[in-house]
Amino acid sequence: MTTAVLAGGVGAARLLAGLVRVTDPATVTAIVNVGDDMVLHGLHISPDLDTVTYTLAGAINLDTGWGLTGETWQAMDQLKRYGGAAWFALGDRDLATHMFRTQRMAEGATLGEVTAEITRAWGLGCTLLPVTNDALRTRVTLMGDGQVGFQEWFVGMQHAPAVSAVRFEGADSATPAPGVIEAIGNATMVIVAPSNPIVSIDPVLAVPGVRDAVTARRDTVVAVSPIVAGKALKGPAADLLRTMGHEVSVVGVARLYAPFAGTLVIDTADADLAPAVADAGMRCVVAPTVMTGPTEAAALATTVLGALS
Amino acid sequence: MTTAVLAGGVGAARLLAGLVRVTDPATVTAIVNVGDDMVLHGLHISPDLDTVTYTLAGAINLDTGWGLTGETWQAMDQLKRYGGAAWFALGDRDLATHMFRTQRMAEGATLGEVTAEITRAWGLGCTLLPVTNDALRTRVTLMGDGQVGFQEWFVGMQHAPAVSAVRFEGADSATPAPGVIEAIGNATMVIVAPSNPIVSIDPVLAVPGVRDAVTARRDTVVAVSPIVAGKALKGPAADLLRTMGHEVSVVGVARLYAPFAGTLVIDTADADLAPAVADAGMRCVVAPTVMTGPTEAAALATTVLGALS
Repeated sequence: MTTAVLAGGVGAARLLAGLVRVTDPATVTAIVNVGDDMVLHGLHISPDLDTVTYTLAGAINLDTGWGLTGETWQAMDQLKRYGGAAWFALGDRDLATHMFRTQRMAEGATLGEVTAEITRAWGLGCTLLPVTNDALRTRVTLMGDGQVGFQEWFVGMQHAPAVSAVRFEGADSATPAPGVIEAIGNATMVIVAPSNPIVSIDPVLAVPGVRDAVTARRDTVVAVSPIVAGKALKGPAADLLRTMGHEVSVVGVARLYAPFAGTLVIDTADADLAPAVADAGMRCVVAPTVMTGPTEAAALATTVLGALS
Repeated sequence: MTTAVLAGGVGAARLLAGLVRVTDPATVTAIVNVGDDMVLHGLHISPDLDTVTYTLAGAINLDTGWGLTGETWQAMDQLKRYGGAAWFALGDRDLATHMFRTQRMAEGATLGEVTAEITRAWGLGCTLLPVTNDALRTRVTLMGDGQVGFQEWFVGMQHAPAVSAVRFEGADSATPAPGVIEAIGNATMVIVAPSNPIVSIDPVLAVPGVRDAVTARRDTVVAVSPIVAGKALKGPAADLLRTMGHEVSVVGVARLYAPFAGTLVIDTADADLAPAVADAGMRCVVAPTVMTGPTEAAALATTVLGALS
């Protein structure tokens, strides 16, 4: 049994942490969104890759869901004294990840190669692949107010301004990173992690070749709904779904995912919507999906791995 | 009385710290070498500007002569865990300086503008100008072994490999930063700090227009010899002078500086060489020049300010 997991940040990281507890980590390949990547202070920052890495390493700050536990903030404090761009908090040890990535890429390494070096340093047993080594940037169009990068809106503006559109700059000319198409094609099961459909999963699928490769595996694609009881557990998924004209429910998710995924795992809180999910064209599995801790994450991973049987 | 000080790193920083103790800081303009600047980990690092800034702010690490006092090393420690390029030590708070500089320059600020912002944040009373806002990079040719950046040789290789040549990449097309030529032209006195003649002062003079502007002030240019008793107090000045075919003595310095500087301050240890300095074409002032502490630095500054009377 091997799995390829389409992944965003926090939700995906938790599911992956469950997966590597209940299955051999070497059989797990995460294909991670890079649309949130940005260059700030000259540093190439890959928020989703880092959240997944730190979570799998057991080093994530559980209070915030991002960054390293036990961080210090000397650089950030000094940056504030300069009046610098301090809207994106970077801990001192976290900074080393971005410094290493930036320097290695300046030396000619691809994002995928650096990611392998970083995950090896953290002792991860599974494989993390950026969906592409090319620059793909999620840009958010604000209601009548120009465009900003995703993190600038999400973190910098605390996702307060209303959004009229989301686009993935560079997606058209991006190519899948080495191993991505193979992992999707060869895995026993393709898993769509409970990540934001609009800004985590969609940019992964936007890389030419990825959506087709996933669709070709439709019968063995199992998605976990990031919407539970009409709400997103974390982040702006609900608002973004609504903005893009989708129903904020497991049914809305099913309508989005049905073209490429055969099965949707929804939370027990949404059990009454199972028939509507089926009507939207997806097999429906009802189970607890809220990963409040490692035990719940492992249980959800087991549910997902058994979802086709 | 106003002064324009051609400056490298540690030696210049100490003299400047003395100057602002014995004269109104607002009358002091330092014109600082940028040949040691480099981009590492994506960060624009300006070693000489930072050494001068931190020293004048009273925040320099006195043990090392570079970096901030009381630094922490979380980022560097983590970078080493990644196997990253750790040859150039960057403390956590120091990192913020490079992050701020890099981001501001990415936003369109010049190096001079960022330098003003940084020195203002540290509360400096004097003016620091990079000699140029353009990329000027000191490159060191190793004996039969290719070329490296100055810091790569000086810090990374601990200036062990023998050097056959030094060149200032980009100097020909560089223009003086706003204020540089004016400061040299308008100052009551131009001071050449006790910095490395080959890799600190020469790259400053290599920016088209600077050498001419200094030469035009020759009668009011006072240089302090960085060579005392045939040795450099710090760094590779002695080796580099020898390599470039110069005598490693105050006389060698006088021969180098005579075309553009009228007066040379030499240490009492070299008093017997005063006639030879005069023969080389420079007025000679003999005084204690070794800045072992703030008192000695202030005394040297007073000597320099009185050197023309």
